[in-house]
Amino acid sequence: MTGTLYGLGIGPGDPDLITLKALKILHAAPVLAYPTLEDGNSLARAIVAPHLSGLHTEIPIRIPMTTARKPAQDAYDRAAIDLKSHLDDGHDVAVLCEGDPFFYGSFMYLFGRIAESHRVEVVPGVSSLTACATALQAPLSARNDVLTVLPAPLADDALRSRMEQADSLAIMKVGRHFGRIRSLIRDMGLSDKARYIERATLETQKILSLEEVPTDVAPYFSMILIHKRGQAWK
Amino acid sequence: MTGTLYGLGIGPGDPDLITLKALKILHAAPVLAYPTLEDGNSLARAIVAPHLSGLHTEIPIRIPMTTARKPAQDAYDRAAIDLKSHLDDGHDVAVLCEGDPFFYGSFMYLFGRIAESHRVEVVPGVSSLTACATALQAPLSARNDVLTVLPAPLADDALRSRMEQADSLAIMKVGRHFGRIRSLIRDMGLSDKARYIERATLETQKILSLEEVPTDVAPYFSMILIHKRGQAWK
Repeated sequence: MTGTLYGLGIGPGDPDLITLKALKILHAAPVLAYPTLEDGNSLARAIVAPHLSGLHTEIPIRIPMTTARKPAQDAYDRAAIDLKSHLDDGHDVAVLCEGDPFFYGSFMYLFGRIAESHRVEVVPGVSSLTACATALQAPLSARNDVLTVLPAPLADDALRSRMEQADSLAIMKVGRHFGRIRSLIRDMGLSDKARYIERATLETQKILSLEEVPTDVAPYFSMILIHKRGQAWK
Repeated sequence: MTGTLYGLGIGPGDPDLITLKALKILHAAPVLAYPTLEDGNSLARAIVAPHLSGLHTEIPIRIPMTTARKPAQDAYDRAAIDLKSHLDDGHDVAVLCEGDPFFYGSFMYLFGRIAESHRVEVVPGVSSLTACATALQAPLSARNDVLTVLPAPLADDALRSRMEQADSLAIMKVGRHFGRIRSLIRDMGLSDKARYIERATLETQKILSLEEVPTDVAPYFSMILIHKRGQAWK
């Protein structure tokens, strides 16, 4: 009997925003894998830390933070081989995924390498998208709103045409694109409908207007939400 | 001391997809409110039924299912008065919300009536959006995908122009619009990239190609997902 690979959505940051289902699987699986920065820090592991017994075999997956694809692909190739060997030994492996595994999640890279040969089960989680709306105390989308989620690395023209057509907008992966995105939103006259949210649901959560953000580079875990009807930005 | 109104995201259907945070609040709040159909049935209450102690004061909120706005508005007006009286008596009130309260949720109607005068806290939940992607075993959005969520009641032209601009699409509130939406997707040549999902994560979950759906009217709790790159529809 080979083991099952679980992609566990563990939610946006607050350890209590994990689901019962993910928690049960976390407690039952003998092997735990999670992405880490090159310095070894892992937000995913920190989120579940209060729920860990100390009995797991832990597999940190170090993913190089670079825009070049090859180093990351190599890292996922190596991780997939490692995880498969645990599965082949009959052990279930839980992979921790911030937010939801299938919502812009890096889990897809492991899924793509392992699902054809081994059993994979994905557990959906609370995404940063709705966590940010909660942080703002304002509905993300309502009634017949069109909601569009845009990755910030897209070119200005591509962003602009989609922003024109949506009622609610979430801009993800802001990071080093923040300055450019802020200018675009300003040009489109949407600044007063936009809010910047950093580390939603964590104790270090920040909510700012775009003009209040002191730099042109935002952390990786940040998002901009825009609601054109401007409802209830409190 | 007045009580707090909690909008609890309870997830898409599987009782284990509730978060620890929602569960703790559910156990602590003395008053429980939830939407019901006119016949008294409540999916929200059914989702949390395994977690209930039997000790809550329960407030079913009967919402008329009609496209006319007035009867529903009147029902929310009455419910808000009722819930406020419990809050004013010092009791916390937990309102059950399928999926996430701020993702096309009816909780916004209570939020809009109560948040100005009373303390309201929203707990985000696993949305049907990512639950449906999990059901399909395929990433909802990845890398620099543009993801757009469209309510089916929009006119064909409005839907078509937004569908042309997105990589991933979720069409919500399909219901009586299913036949029209199916024709539109067929006309756009996207049928083989589309899947129909009904009651995701419940035991009665169904996944069908659009052509397999035997009627032009779908249940309220159904969604269509389209990924233009057509990845991994298994």
